[in-house]
Amino acid sequence: MILNAIKQMERYARNTSDVISLSQGIPFLNSDNSIREAVVNALLHNNVDAYSDPQGLLILREKISEMLYMDNMNYSEGEIIVSAGATEALMATFLSLITSQKNEVLIPTPTYSAYFRIAENAKGKIIPVPLTEKEGWKLDINFLKKKITTDTSIILLCNPNNPTGSIYSKEELLEVCLLAKKNDAVVVLDEVYGEMLFDNNKIYTPCVLSELKANIIRVVSFSKDFSLTGWRVAFLHSDKRIIQKIIPVHDAIINCAPVISQYAALAAIENRDRILSANEIIYTQQRDIMKSYLDDLKPFLEYSMPKGAYFFFPKFIKKQNVEDFCFRLLKKGHVAIVPGTDFGPGGEDHIRLCFGREKEDIIKGMERLSKYLYNSRL
Amino acid sequence: MILNAIKQMERYARNTSDVISLSQGIPFLNSDNSIREAVVNALLHNNVDAYSDPQGLLILREKISEMLYMDNMNYSEGEIIVSAGATEALMATFLSLITSQKNEVLIPTPTYSAYFRIAENAKGKIIPVPLTEKEGWKLDINFLKKKITTDTSIILLCNPNNPTGSIYSKEELLEVCLLAKKNDAVVVLDEVYGEMLFDNNKIYTPCVLSELKANIIRVVSFSKDFSLTGWRVAFLHSDKRIIQKIIPVHDAIINCAPVISQYAALAAIENRDRILSANEIIYTQQRDIMKSYLDDLKPFLEYSMPKGAYFFFPKFIKKQNVEDFCFRLLKKGHVAIVPGTDFGPGGEDHIRLCFGREKEDIIKGMERLSKYLYNSRL
Repeated sequence: MILNAIKQMERYARNTSDVISLSQGIPFLNSDNSIREAVVNALLHNNVDAYSDPQGLLILREKISEMLYMDNMNYSEGEIIVSAGATEALMATFLSLITSQKNEVLIPTPTYSAYFRIAENAKGKIIPVPLTEKEGWKLDINFLKKKITTDTSIILLCNPNNPTGSIYSKEELLEVCLLAKKNDAVVVLDEVYGEMLFDNNKIYTPCVLSELKANIIRVVSFSKDFSLTGWRVAFLHSDKRIIQKIIPVHDAIINCAPVISQYAALAAIENRDRILSANEIIYTQQRDIMKSYLDDLKPFLEYSMPKGAYFFFPKFIKKQNVEDFCFRLLKKGHVAIVPGTDFGPGGEDHIRLCFGREKEDIIKGMERLSKYLYNSRL
Repeated sequence: MILNAIKQMERYARNTSDVISLSQGIPFLNSDNSIREAVVNALLHNNVDAYSDPQGLLILREKISEMLYMDNMNYSEGEIIVSAGATEALMATFLSLITSQKNEVLIPTPTYSAYFRIAENAKGKIIPVPLTEKEGWKLDINFLKKKITTDTSIILLCNPNNPTGSIYSKEELLEVCLLAKKNDAVVVLDEVYGEMLFDNNKIYTPCVLSELKANIIRVVSFSKDFSLTGWRVAFLHSDKRIIQKIIPVHDAIINCAPVISQYAALAAIENRDRILSANEIIYTQQRDIMKSYLDDLKPFLEYSMPKGAYFFFPKFIKKQNVEDFCFRLLKKGHVAIVPGTDFGPGGEDHIRLCFGREKEDIIKGMERLSKYLYNSRL
């Protein structure tokens, strides 16, 4: 398979009429008007045609620094890199930190499949760490303790986690960070869904503790929270020593993040509270619509409520080859969803359903899934 | 040094008032109005907020395929990847093709310093191949013949070459491609300045020969020719088997090229002939202005006329530590230029001067360089 299952499914759906996609995590919302206006404004009044500094526009990094400060995180504009999406930020990070001596990457699974590809491309040795579904996808900290050594380069945590929608607790996060510190490793916190939270859930960010600064790289994206996936803009922040390791690699990958997108990000921050509040209402509704369908599918699937991100990750009651299932569903039921196996160990018997897509697609897609499940009598 | 000399110099110039930069290759022109109009149009009528297919928008790849066909190159839309600039295209290519068994990268030097960083990040072993200045920076093909083995993964040619402004002849290119084919290696042709040519010079592209398709990856950027460096958009094309190797790596680096920039690229192609003809006149003028200053500096510097790209690469008559020189010039003469040593072996005693910048900056910068040279009596 050339691409991972998410992208293959999405590609198939894109190129086939009458297939509804609940596969790739693309927000159905358009970017906010304030962002679009800022883009046009930048086009007229700023130099968007020329490269910016590799680290990103200074005004944007200053704005990010302020935003972090409001959230009790102390990072100067020199400790921030604006990246071409979270993916590029992670690739730059992995290529910078993984060496032939220190090459192990601990990744709790199931999690976003692109992480495995990024780690492999950076010649990292992936060590999956189980998340325990029965305990709300809690991290198996004893397993992690056994596996962490001085060969460990990175521990990668997606919080909230894609595809499980679970959140790491403050205690889990602090324990992982302290273990990292003890072993001279770095915790990479991918908070790409960090603002997409439900039912007043909040995530804790250990970056508020300055003594952990040298052992955490936090990645924040504008893609999901601000419906800017196509614009490729995100940022990471860390201790200056780490930032200076990542800058030349980031520069060798991309030169700088797209400048027009950096202006879009600036507007996103300026309108952050309003946009995020509106999103929360919309995505909560969409989650509840999908939930109502899943409740009718209890003979086939069990699920837990996602606390964050926009996925359900239900599990088949009976053992199931989910790759075959998804393929058959695509061909016969005309819905694209993602087999849980794409997310590494622990994803077996699961499927991922995205409720970030059009409401109409969620309804139609879930109806088709229902019909298919009831008709095929699994 | 965190960044290479080009970026360090540019950064210093950007943050210091009264320093004129002739360092980084940033076109002074803004993008054409037709491109800006297309961007606003896409913002209003197309879905620029969502990811595109990892390979790029189909309409753009179809347009690129047509454009290549007009230039006698036969590549379907499946054999094209739209990338986030040439740099990302090269990083994806290097990460895809370099293996622990086949890890050697032959790079004629002096050439663009980012290549070395990209190759190193992909764990490539760099083997510099000399270009002979006295013969118009001709490739030392005998040296290349000696160095190419079955361990050779990539031969990287920048054509026209940055910083020398020289062009590889058809014979050189064919010879290199045949050597690559014999050794199961791939020639990566970076034609980032492919349309920036002077005095009716043309470059030959071996991609017109279908029997070489499996051994060539051609990289074409919109950055320089269309003044779109900040937009991060380029493309590569090759044989389908190679493309399918690169897609997952490109996807793991960036997901997809910024979508708004893909629409900018579409407009660039549609208005290509008009924009390129206008550029040729402008850059020829700027080159001639810089040349007139260099002619007055013959006691210190000798130079050859660039056939393509927008750099002069003059050599000091007397041996010179060019890093020291550039640093002193920056501090005392307030002009940022790039020491030739940044471009690898063969760059010693040289400096790179960009005539792609504002006319006024070229004049002021060259006056300052003159004054500094005459006053310091090297």
